[in-house]
Amino acid sequence: MTAAEAPHAYVHGYHDREQQRLHDQARTLSDLLHHDTHYPTGSRVLEAGCGTGAQTLTLAAQSPQAHFTCVDISPASLAMARERAAAAGLHNTRFREADLRALPFAAASFDHVFVCFVLEHLADPVGCLRTLLQLVRPGGTLTAIEGDHGSVMFHPESAAARHAIDCQVQLQARAGGNALIGRQLYPLLQAAGAAQVEVSPRFVYVDASRPAWVDGFTRKTFTAMVEGVREDAIGAGLTRADAFDEGVRALQRTAESDGVFCYTFFKAVVRVP
Amino acid sequence: MTAAEAPHAYVHGYHDREQQRLHDQARTLSDLLHHDTHYPTGSRVLEAGCGTGAQTLTLAAQSPQAHFTCVDISPASLAMARERAAAAGLHNTRFREADLRALPFAAASFDHVFVCFVLEHLADPVGCLRTLLQLVRPGGTLTAIEGDHGSVMFHPESAAARHAIDCQVQLQARAGGNALIGRQLYPLLQAAGAAQVEVSPRFVYVDASRPAWVDGFTRKTFTAMVEGVREDAIGAGLTRADAFDEGVRALQRTAESDGVFCYTFFKAVVRVP
Repeated sequence: MTAAEAPHAYVHGYHDREQQRLHDQARTLSDLLHHDTHYPTGSRVLEAGCGTGAQTLTLAAQSPQAHFTCVDISPASLAMARERAAAAGLHNTRFREADLRALPFAAASFDHVFVCFVLEHLADPVGCLRTLLQLVRPGGTLTAIEGDHGSVMFHPESAAARHAIDCQVQLQARAGGNALIGRQLYPLLQAAGAAQVEVSPRFVYVDASRPAWVDGFTRKTFTAMVEGVREDAIGAGLTRADAFDEGVRALQRTAESDGVFCYTFFKAVVRVP
Repeated sequence: MTAAEAPHAYVHGYHDREQQRLHDQARTLSDLLHHDTHYPTGSRVLEAGCGTGAQTLTLAAQSPQAHFTCVDISPASLAMARERAAAAGLHNTRFREADLRALPFAAASFDHVFVCFVLEHLADPVGCLRTLLQLVRPGGTLTAIEGDHGSVMFHPESAAARHAIDCQVQLQARAGGNALIGRQLYPLLQAAGAAQVEVSPRFVYVDASRPAWVDGFTRKTFTAMVEGVREDAIGAGLTRADAFDEGVRALQRTAESDGVFCYTFFKAVVRVP
């Protein structure tokens, strides 16, 4: 998840703990989200909004003979992404600073475009998708992945947990984004002029029989993400400390042995005629 | 969906339109829900709460060499189920009137038990599951499938639609049931003493690229089901006609070309040691 339009307003923040969360998330989720994304030998792939490279590492390793151009608006994120790609021994990635609203590429200059956890932060996702679609050569593809906080389901149910999640949804909306964007990929891509769109949900189901997901997703991805907006939510007057903390505890409660947690990501693949 | 405990309070009703909806639903959903349920030659399977046979027809056709004993508390539903099984040319089904709270079977007398859209209507689902688990011989399985109205997601978002759905959730709760039970299969089965439980979500994703699902699920299954509680919801004082009808129109709106509709069923398979 990277900030392409307004890094100062980026809801998740840029601190170390957040970086760790993003990488934990990528490790836990990468199979679910990316197992069916493979780019052919020699193909030119644009990753729009690579952030610190959380998805890049998976994508580039899965398609070692494809060439990835990964852009982001944040030099600090790009520096981290470069370092991690080098540490992972990847030789098929180039990183470049760029604003998604003014990308320095010619029309049809990529075989494939990939954009993941970026549209949720944009005030004009349709405009961005229209731009990205123009960069794909005829016969190429665009892949977009987003979460949707409206998909959260858990047991035990808790109004306090819903309140804490809603604080993040509201903060993201105030920053011009949309934490409920996943379900909208199909109509957004249609509005951007895409003809052949195929959306597939990626459902994260977590109960005590899946301890790696309890720890990696319920605790370290979702609950940690909500916890991460605590100060901003209190500062913005959306909640009080005690109400927010009760919500976080209720989310942690869903990670116990009789708890259940569910979240859905949406993946859209567009074939450009 | 059948009424095992309280047929007079059965939230979906027994009228013809409801029967048609159940069968439309079964046709549209049967692959998603049942494609991985096959019972071996000669195995004895109990379907607990078969209703009018909406699931029976699929199950029995998929496992033609297994023997199905299908019970329900409603003689009228059983008569319809018998008729349909005969019309489908099935010779491996027996139908029998029985109350799930007092089943006339000895412990361990079945190889497999199947229960679908029944627990949502029971005041004591754990008690029912405990009873059903006792009927499975060691080495057999119990399969349970339930929906969860908390999983509903749609675009465009609509408070009116949420209100109409909530009317059904509340009516079902007043009748002693739980329309949010799907996510709880794991903890309910644990509480019933099951050791090896594997739950898999079955996600229904509908956009305009899937017209059969738009018609078969968004319109004829989910929206029709909500519409079906209109009179009861008004009569119970949960809503007014105009507010409810606005909600139904908002659900119908999600079936238009830029609309999206999502719903999740949960399937649990227990292996009995």
